[in-house]
Amino acid sequence: MEKGMVSLASDNYAGASPEIVAAVAAAAMGTAGAYGEDPWTALAEAEFKQIFGADISVFFVMTGTAANVLSIDAVTRPFESVLISDCSHMHMDECGAPGRFTGSQFIVVPSEGGKLTVEGLRPWVEQEPEYHRSSPRVVSITQTTEYATVYSVDEITAISDYAHDHGLLVHMDGSRISNAAVALGLDLPAFTRDAGVDILSFGGTKNGMMFGEAVLFFSHDYDEAFQYTRKQGMQLVSKMRFVGAQFEAFLKMGIWRRNAAHANAMAEKIAAALQGVPGVTITQPVEANAVFAILPEAMIEALHKQYHFYIWDPAIHEVRLMASFATTDAEIRAFSEAVNAFR
Amino acid sequence: MEKGMVSLASDNYAGASPEIVAAVAAAAMGTAGAYGEDPWTALAEAEFKQIFGADISVFFVMTGTAANVLSIDAVTRPFESVLISDCSHMHMDECGAPGRFTGSQFIVVPSEGGKLTVEGLRPWVEQEPEYHRSSPRVVSITQTTEYATVYSVDEITAISDYAHDHGLLVHMDGSRISNAAVALGLDLPAFTRDAGVDILSFGGTKNGMMFGEAVLFFSHDYDEAFQYTRKQGMQLVSKMRFVGAQFEAFLKMGIWRRNAAHANAMAEKIAAALQGVPGVTITQPVEANAVFAILPEAMIEALHKQYHFYIWDPAIHEVRLMASFATTDAEIRAFSEAVNAFR
Amino acid sequence: MEKGMVSLASDNYAGASPEIVAAVAAAAMGTAGAYGEDPWTALAEAEFKQIFGADISVFFVMTGTAANVLSIDAVTRPFESVLISDCSHMHMDECGAPGRFTGSQFIVVPSEGGKLTVEGLRPWVEQEPEYHRSSPRVVSITQTTEYATVYSVDEITAISDYAHDHGLLVHMDGSRISNAAVALGLDLPAFTRDAGVDILSFGGTKNGMMFGEAVLFFSHDYDEAFQYTRKQGMQLVSKMRFVGAQFEAFLKMGIWRRNAAHANAMAEKIAAALQGVPGVTITQPVEANAVFAILPEAMIEALHKQYHFYIWDPAIHEVRLMASFATTDAEIRAFSEAVNAFR
Amino acid sequence: MEKGMVSLASDNYAGASPEIVAAVAAAAMGTAGAYGEDPWTALAEAEFKQIFGADISVFFVMTGTAANVLSIDAVTRPFESVLISDCSHMHMDECGAPGRFTGSQFIVVPSEGGKLTVEGLRPWVEQEPEYHRSSPRVVSITQTTEYATVYSVDEITAISDYAHDHGLLVHMDGSRISNAAVALGLDLPAFTRDAGVDILSFGGTKNGMMFGEAVLFFSHDYDEAFQYTRKQGMQLVSKMRFVGAQFEAFLKMGIWRRNAAHANAMAEKIAAALQGVPGVTITQPVEANAVFAILPEAMIEALHKQYHFYIWDPAIHEVRLMASFATTDAEIRAFSEAVNAFR
Repeated sequence: MEKGMVSLASDNYAGASPEIVAAVAAAAMGTAGAYGEDPWTALAEAEFKQIFGADISVFFVMTGTAANVLSIDAVTRPFESVLISDCSHMHMDECGAPGRFTGSQFIVVPSEGGKLTVEGLRPWVEQEPEYHRSSPRVVSITQTTEYATVYSVDEITAISDYAHDHGLLVHMDGSRISNAAVALGLDLPAFTRDAGVDILSFGGTKNGMMFGEAVLFFSHDYDEAFQYTRKQGMQLVSKMRFVGAQFEAFLKMGIWRRNAAHANAMAEKIAAALQGVPGVTITQPVEANAVFAILPEAMIEALHKQYHFYIWDPAIHEVRLMASFATTDAEIRAFSEAVNAFR
Repeated sequence: MEKGMVSLASDNYAGASPEIVAAVAAAAMGTAGAYGEDPWTALAEAEFKQIFGADISVFFVMTGTAANVLSIDAVTRPFESVLISDCSHMHMDECGAPGRFTGSQFIVVPSEGGKLTVEGLRPWVEQEPEYHRSSPRVVSITQTTEYATVYSVDEITAISDYAHDHGLLVHMDGSRISNAAVALGLDLPAFTRDAGVDILSFGGTKNGMMFGEAVLFFSHDYDEAFQYTRKQGMQLVSKMRFVGAQFEAFLKMGIWRRNAAHANAMAEKIAAALQGVPGVTITQPVEANAVFAILPEAMIEALHKQYHFYIWDPAIHEVRLMASFATTDAEIRAFSEAVNAFR
Repeated sequence: MEKGMVSLASDNYAGASPEIVAAVAAAAMGTAGAYGEDPWTALAEAEFKQIFGADISVFFVMTGTAANVLSIDAVTRPFESVLISDCSHMHMDECGAPGRFTGSQFIVVPSEGGKLTVEGLRPWVEQEPEYHRSSPRVVSITQTTEYATVYSVDEITAISDYAHDHGLLVHMDGSRISNAAVALGLDLPAFTRDAGVDILSFGGTKNGMMFGEAVLFFSHDYDEAFQYTRKQGMQLVSKMRFVGAQFEAFLKMGIWRRNAAHANAMAEKIAAALQGVPGVTITQPVEANAVFAILPEAMIEALHKQYHFYIWDPAIHEVRLMASFATTDAEIRAFSEAVNAFR
Repeated sequence: MEKGMVSLASDNYAGASPEIVAAVAAAAMGTAGAYGEDPWTALAEAEFKQIFGADISVFFVMTGTAANVLSIDAVTRPFESVLISDCSHMHMDECGAPGRFTGSQFIVVPSEGGKLTVEGLRPWVEQEPEYHRSSPRVVSITQTTEYATVYSVDEITAISDYAHDHGLLVHMDGSRISNAAVALGLDLPAFTRDAGVDILSFGGTKNGMMFGEAVLFFSHDYDEAFQYTRKQGMQLVSKMRFVGAQFEAFLKMGIWRRNAAHANAMAEKIAAALQGVPGVTITQPVEANAVFAILPEAMIEALHKQYHFYIWDPAIHEVRLMASFATTDAEIRAFSEAVNAFR
């Protein structure tokens, strides 16, 4: 990224919140057990249990891809398949990692506004089981979706109920789960555990942490499998304390909510700036921290001189404008002015 | 680990050096490209090129297991095998990750003092190629070895020359490479690239970093493969800047050498403390940051009250006492006194 | 299958041609090299070279799934993807074997009448390469398609030219390639090698052999990889002579053409029997050895008492009626009469 | 193999018994369900149940490697390891197939006379479970061993009892199980199921069949897993009837015993011919169908003009002379005369 540019490209372009940095620095001193046998990891686990219930299992890994792949690996055998959406990160942006590591078939199901539906699942779930086809075992949904839309509790419950009725588990890729909670105005369990989600990839990195993702199982059935799988999956870091320290601060101090609320609010302002500009169509409901919009070509060109953002669908000049916890009011004001030139 | 205990268990029990913490904190501000497209990563790469030559390829991953597995994956096809020692980390302590991810056969060869020898490799390398057996492609050696012994330049060169003569590549698991450089009194290239090593897992975590390992290829042949493989191997972290910032400080400020020199010196003092104690036999040459010794059972029991360390071979009461950059003179003095009670 | 039933279910329900049985019996005597080092295998290879050119590479495996999976494995690295149709055998009927063994992503592309098109490939082939997505390497087409339709030479050439222009290879799943050759009225190379196909799974089992499939590479680039991969893929049978003997007879005696011509002709008669029956719609062009048709429910029920065949799409009462080399004129006459009751 | 040579190289060089050929020919006629849904497969299963008990599970595959790999895959997760001997076929002659397909670590344990012992297993089985090491799940033994020696019932029972006491399963690679039964003078269950074996790869090909191996589970726990795994492992042949027909004849007509008895007797004669020849040392007890012996170099050279056999260990001029069901008395008489020239 060139100097002086403002990024609306991705929340991955932001750094880390000061409280997170402070937590890491504080954890650097002294001797502690390796591989998660340290006090910080225990405290972070306790925070998660505080939120989701004392009976859950919590594990830490380093990347969102690892959280998705390894959690699914722990609950599937290679002949069992996973149903994912056609725009899911696992399908589009993980370089085939899910299939390679698990050996399972990841079956792509059409989505609407980034969301899976029970109707889309039916053809795969309700076919007669037979040995020529892999056997559906997991449905995975992304919250917020890759289009920054947000599944309602009812939508999730419908999928969970259907999945459970047919012997499938529900995984949620929650790399932006904080943004979803803010968008829904709900506590975290309300649209995860309480809505029937069995396995949750809980993201930290995109929302103000330096690195680190959590995997939550709302059951202890997969503890043994996951612990071996994490090591075999090259994700058992020795100085786990530095992940634990971040997550403890992230949860205990409410950074997750504060940062997500800010990012969502910034996206709302981006949308407001675009509203009514000739030739602009906002293509997805703006529910979280990103805006998808078709812009006039000249406008894209002009904005690209100052703002870094991705062309999502070149065929229709659709762009993604994404805010993060670090996006400033000043940046968005300047962006609005730049847009206003096209009114 | 219980409160108040002193750890001589592993260099993984230490935290991070203050300069490393400072570097991470400094990197937390501002927008930067994700997935390694940031200035810190570029600076860290430049430091490695300064040391090893401008024509090398440098990549970062999060764990030593990942550095080993993914670098070998990039240079092998699944029907090609890797020759490793019977005490190697890849064989004993990576939960089968190398075989699972690469699909390759990891063939275990007897070691002497933790070291592979050309004689040990011969039966596998010199057999007639045929399709019923996997085809040897890589020899992997660990420096310092799992017994904290150090390959000499001549020993490495002998293996490299033999490997290259037979069409094999040489990988070095350098999770404690800094300790080896200090022990040998040599610059880093002298016993790696210049001695014929083709691929180097360069460790940072055990020697004062928070997390992060580097993979160095002394060739550009594997760049494309490694970059895809790293993503597919779940190791492409989005906020790579936090790895880059650490490695830049680690290398530029000479932390790697300072920390390793300290750890090695502490191990020497441990060895000195044990020398001549009745019933004590030091079982391996003390060349780097650990001491392997047979201790009287009563002594193990007594020391375990204050010191955390591993029983290496319970059959013969052999223990491993490992120092780190964070081990203090005071700790070792106290340990020596505790040992002296058994003189 | 119950006694007395006639199968229009699959060409896999037929036995083997007498000449094939005789060839196998003749090969049972005497000592011969194992694992393909026998005269019969050499003769079968020579027959393939006679047909496709002396410079091809020929290998034998035991199942169609193995032919597809292992040939693709030999030409891909796990981060390279394979583009397949949404109705392909590899996607629908191989239980995830392709992804599990190769580690590659098999990307499903919409088909028309069972066929891939260049337009369908474009979104995957022409995206900017980057490490977050697997890199397209192979396009795989099925000839005849899973809908028993047949790609024309022009259709195949269009795909091949496009694939080669973008650095991809073309694989053809030819489990029913004999039926295609008869349907097109062409020699085998005309719509395979000469049309730009690089790798061919050449089927024998469905068309009169007992078992055995051939993998043809129209290049020697993959010889070493395939030979190791075949062994690693559990497909290197010791008494390969029994595959070789069958293929030699199959090709030399023209059984492949005779059997396919018969099966195709029988399918034509099935279609003729259905033509004009009230409530019947033939849903795909009848070009090879199967008829896809929507039948009235009562008719399906009535026919199922005597004839074994599959409901292809229960939602619309579409069935598949498939003839084989062993389907008799008498069986089809009787079937026609049974159908006539519904006129 | 050159014309006119006699093979003492491998039982894989023999063809097939006439009864087997007749069974295959008889199965070629008529329509039958595919993928094992045919009467011949059912009859073969019934024969196995007659021998081993009505409550076993029987499946067919095409190669010995597949029988080993897929049966172990069905009972392990990738982080669970398999203990095998240093001379085992899985370690030495399957090109890494076991590790690649299962993802599991195959840990090599020293053998004595081709046999595993409880003492050899202890260091792996009795270590403290922890997530850095794969978790032992299966012990695999080969009967007859790769040295053509035969485990006694007591030896097998000792291993099984130990394995079961520690939560492990016992797999037997029985590619030459018929030779073992004859050698022991026991019925098949006596040294398999009754001795604690849980999973049996039952070989047919080396002893007079054309192709085909059976996998027997002495439990129904793995039925679902194996059936999916077999398909995913590319081993579900469509015209399974041709495997079933062979196994039915093989078992029902006692071909397995007759052929093995002949092969074993021929090996005994080979041993007798070598006994007392100057410079000859028979290196392994001759218990089944092969003789391992150190021969003078000149003798090897002379015999190689007429007889095809392998140098097992070139360093000590050890050869393997292997008889098959097809080895003739005349061949062995001629061999004995050739040997006598060296007395």
